Amino acid sequence: MASERGAEPVPGDGAAARDGAAAENRAAAENALGYWRAGRARDHAEFELFFRRCPFGGAFALAAGLRDCLRFLRTFCLRDADVQFLASVLPPDTDPAFFEHLRTLDCSGVTLRALPEGSLAFPGVPLLQVSGPLLLVQLLETPLLCLVSYASLVATNAARLRLIAGPNKRLMEFGLRRAQGPDGGLTASTYSYLGGFDSSSNTLAGQLRGVPVAGTLAHSFITSFLGSEVPPDPMLAPAIGTGPRVDLTTSVKVWLERVCAHLGLGMQEPHPGERAAFVAYALAFPRAFQGLLDSYSVQRSGLPNFLGVALALGELGYRAVGVRLDSGDLLQQAQEIRAVFRTTATRFQVPWLEFIPITVSNNIDEEELARLAQEGTEVNAFGIGTSLVTCPRQPSLGCVYKLVSVGGQPRMKLTEEPEKQTLPGSKAAFRLLDSAGFLLLDVLQLAEEPPPQAEKELKVWPLGARDPCTVKPARVEPLLRRWLHKGQLCEPLPSLAESRAFAQWSLNRLSPAHKQLQSPAPYQVALSEQLRALVDRLSARGAP
Amino acid sequence: MASERGAEPVPGDGAAARDGAAAENRAAAENALGYWRAGRARDHAEFELFFRRCPFGGAFALAAGLRDCLRFLRTFCLRDADVQFLASVLPPDTDPAFFEHLRTLDCSGVTLRALPEGSLAFPGVPLLQVSGPLLLVQLLETPLLCLVSYASLVATNAARLRLIAGPNKRLMEFGLRRAQGPDGGLTASTYSYLGGFDSSSNTLAGQLRGVPVAGTLAHSFITSFLGSEVPPDPMLAPAIGTGPRVDLTTSVKVWLERVCAHLGLGMQEPHPGERAAFVAYALAFPRAFQGLLDSYSVQRSGLPNFLGVALALGELGYRAVGVRLDSGDLLQQAQEIRAVFRTTATRFQVPWLEFIPITVSNNIDEEELARLAQEGTEVNAFGIGTSLVTCPRQPSLGCVYKLVSVGGQPRMKLTEEPEKQTLPGSKAAFRLLDSAGFLLLDVLQLAEEPPPQAEKELKVWPLGARDPCTVKPARVEPLLRRWLHKGQLCEPLPSLAESRAFAQWSLNRLSPAHKQLQSPAPYQVALSEQLRALVDRLSARGAP
Repeated sequence: MASERGAEPVPGDGAAARDGAAAENRAAAENALGYWRAGRARDHAEFELFFRRCPFGGAFALAAGLRDCLRFLRTFCLRDADVQFLASVLPPDTDPAFFEHLRTLDCSGVTLRALPEGSLAFPGVPLLQVSGPLLLVQLLETPLLCLVSYASLVATNAARLRLIAGPNKRLMEFGLRRAQGPDGGLTASTYSYLGGFDSSSNTLAGQLRGVPVAGTLAHSFITSFLGSEVPPDPMLAPAIGTGPRVDLTTSVKVWLERVCAHLGLGMQEPHPGERAAFVAYALAFPRAFQGLLDSYSVQRSGLPNFLGVALALGELGYRAVGVRLDSGDLLQQAQEIRAVFRTTATRFQVPWLEFIPITVSNNIDEEELARLAQEGTEVNAFGIGTSLVTCPRQPSLGCVYKLVSVGGQPRMKLTEEPEKQTLPGSKAAFRLLDSAGFLLLDVLQLAEEPPPQAEKELKVWPLGARDPCTVKPARVEPLLRRWLHKGQLCEPLPSLAESRAFAQWSLNRLSPAHKQLQSPAPYQVALSEQLRALVDRLSARGAP
Repeated sequence: MASERGAEPVPGDGAAARDGAAAENRAAAENALGYWRAGRARDHAEFELFFRRCPFGGAFALAAGLRDCLRFLRTFCLRDADVQFLASVLPPDTDPAFFEHLRTLDCSGVTLRALPEGSLAFPGVPLLQVSGPLLLVQLLETPLLCLVSYASLVATNAARLRLIAGPNKRLMEFGLRRAQGPDGGLTASTYSYLGGFDSSSNTLAGQLRGVPVAGTLAHSFITSFLGSEVPPDPMLAPAIGTGPRVDLTTSVKVWLERVCAHLGLGMQEPHPGERAAFVAYALAFPRAFQGLLDSYSVQRSGLPNFLGVALALGELGYRAVGVRLDSGDLLQQAQEIRAVFRTTATRFQVPWLEFIPITVSNNIDEEELARLAQEGTEVNAFGIGTSLVTCPRQPSLGCVYKLVSVGGQPRMKLTEEPEKQTLPGSKAAFRLLDSAGFLLLDVLQLAEEPPPQAEKELKVWPLGARDPCTVKPARVEPLLRRWLHKGQLCEPLPSLAESRAFAQWSLNRLSPAHKQLQSPAPYQVALSEQLRALVDRLSARGAP
């Protein structure tokens, strides 16, 4: 959907916010001026973006947001209006040459290494390594954090829900209305899909990102019908062949009588407005008819009305595609509904009716999903909104963006809070695997060190441990790939669907102990001897 | 910052997401087709947007997001690409006339009533009333929910933090990097300001929305300096007058020696890189010099370095504007720093030094803010990011958008979960006040009823209570204003700053018992006798 100009005179609002990820930071502009004034704007610097703790009490995260970062970096520039605004908030005596410098900024000098989207990510392992002119790469801090943190968080959240649901249940993202504005919703839909969901209700995510879209009936659609409405054209042709068109309203009435007799209900019990709504929907979507059962009473109204319409459609060769429940005890109702489907399928000899998918929604979180997806459940699909999109268990990943080298010299932040220390130097990262193909640990080392070798013993220093350990990997994989070199894309980004498949493949290589959602065994990230020695040296010097 | 086109071929990505709030919903498109097929697309309908429970365990919320809704509604349309995409996901045999209908949609038939932004909002009281053609206003559901829910949630969160901090502390929003993408950040900055914050670090919020922007130094700015750097021009002119320029580096060295002597530190203790960074920043911002004290040791490095630079600047007539702490025990350090400021101010006879504002940041939530803002604290300003922007205590307001009438007939959702019932009919809402000007309760009644009158006893039915009560208000205020009539703006929207002031004024009229953040006295919302009778009638009929 489009827009010309908003209600307020705000040129380019939003377009800038997203496409340019213009998300800028006053502090960044001030720091930029500081660098410029110190003659250091073009010093070569490298930053790393990483997190310090896995989200949600788990032992893994999924890396995501790279496609948005690349889109941002490749188009980054400061427009005249942006520079003018910065000039208006910086001191009036700021050297005009500084603003001229800002006008020339783009990412033609920036190199980006990153974990591929959908990779497993662990504390301290860089999701991004960004290098280029100091002033510029410092300026990128907030936009990149903003683009990576939430994307990775929601992808991880989706992956956890997928682990709980197992591979065969359908997971549908319903969270647009709970997102931080429409654009937050687009991010949520995109990266929920990457993390393992099957679809989104957000058509924009389909249109712009290729996420499969799926939605269902709204309660207000149903309550908008009284039952006295007459469809302008109640006639429906059979699904296949050229049989005569049938008046669906009449046919539904006939079937509803049979259904009520079978279920021991009075014909006046099912709500006529609900039935009219179902018929209207069936006329619009004969091949995709579905029922939302709980606008009135599920057992006395929603279910018989659904069955009446589904059986009338069935007579014409159409199969209803599902029902949805949005209130009450979802598990118990699903079992009851399946039982009714079974007896009705037998009674009317329509075997497919037994297997109509049951979708449930309504505040489903990890615990409720575990209950609903347990062995023997009759629930086939889940619509999850709030607890997916807002990540209530931990609404922020807490990524940081830290300077690791300037002019080829390693830098380190040595604070009084040891947890906030950083790992200095330009680094490489490797994943070591055992002979069964499971992940052993990740190793961070200096960029210039030779990579660890398969089948060779390696002494490393696990983060947070006092002593080194030795490890003999069956395989070694480099983790970071170069996506952007001096502003040029080095290789095409996988499609979203490919990244989604890669995420599931990656998770399959993580051992169950690390994959556990509560109190998992922490996955180890370790430093090479050389990196560890550098940390010790800089710490002892008490200096960056 | 600008963008031409992203890394992926996604035309209009983002621009659409925000400006058009294109946030669309597959379900909505399907329901739209259902209405259309039922010949009901143009039935006149009214929806209400409201929440059922106040967020964060409090007894109030602030209404926000109206400016975004108006911008969205006034520019709403479906572009060719949008309609084509919908056509691609709807059944192939969908009547082409339906898509023609979609192409003609705009909000020229839509009327919007709403609480002014910054109003106190309570459960069940509509934040928005949207009326117009059924198909269209149903289609608006998700975008409007998306634009109002998070805006109101974050404004309420900001208002709670403001209540804790009191009116005189500075509250700075630092949350961009924790938002759901850059646009979520823009929403967060805008409505945090509306809710009572003083500024944002997000320059885009300044540029597009007029939010005051304020930022501070970054740790990486400081750790990027080793101390061996030579500023290209270390000379600084005095603040006023025409005295000779002074070499700031040299002057800082002289002052640092005095400071170290005063504090009993060795000259080698303060970090030379940190000092070089402070000097670079002071050269760039002599009138706005501030120090970030905790890149190394606060007491042995950050503080003496800051004092050296501040005193050197002071000699030239410049006053440092603040220091910031971002780790450790913020309260205790603030007290210690103020003590050092005091003795140093006395020692060197620079009285202003004593009052330099101390800003703290680092995971400040409501509890920590209460501790840091307590009586006698030396903290003057707070930078709050994650816990403001992500609303971890309750990351979703849970607004709903419910049909209340079609064709002038009231509609009601009667579900088996009583909590999910809706209040039928087109309504008016009034706020009753006592003689001291405090809020008594809100009354919902049918639109056609005469308004309650001041000084006249009124019998009402509080929501959730079994029995009616009588109330005699000293004043009665209508709550909902008409902003849009048949697509035309009826009155100009107040500026963001005006809405911010209105929010604080509104909060001042709420009694302390309702304003309490934990276990407050719930504020009552009541139904008029006529509305209550309608609810009873429809419930008994078991019908919409």
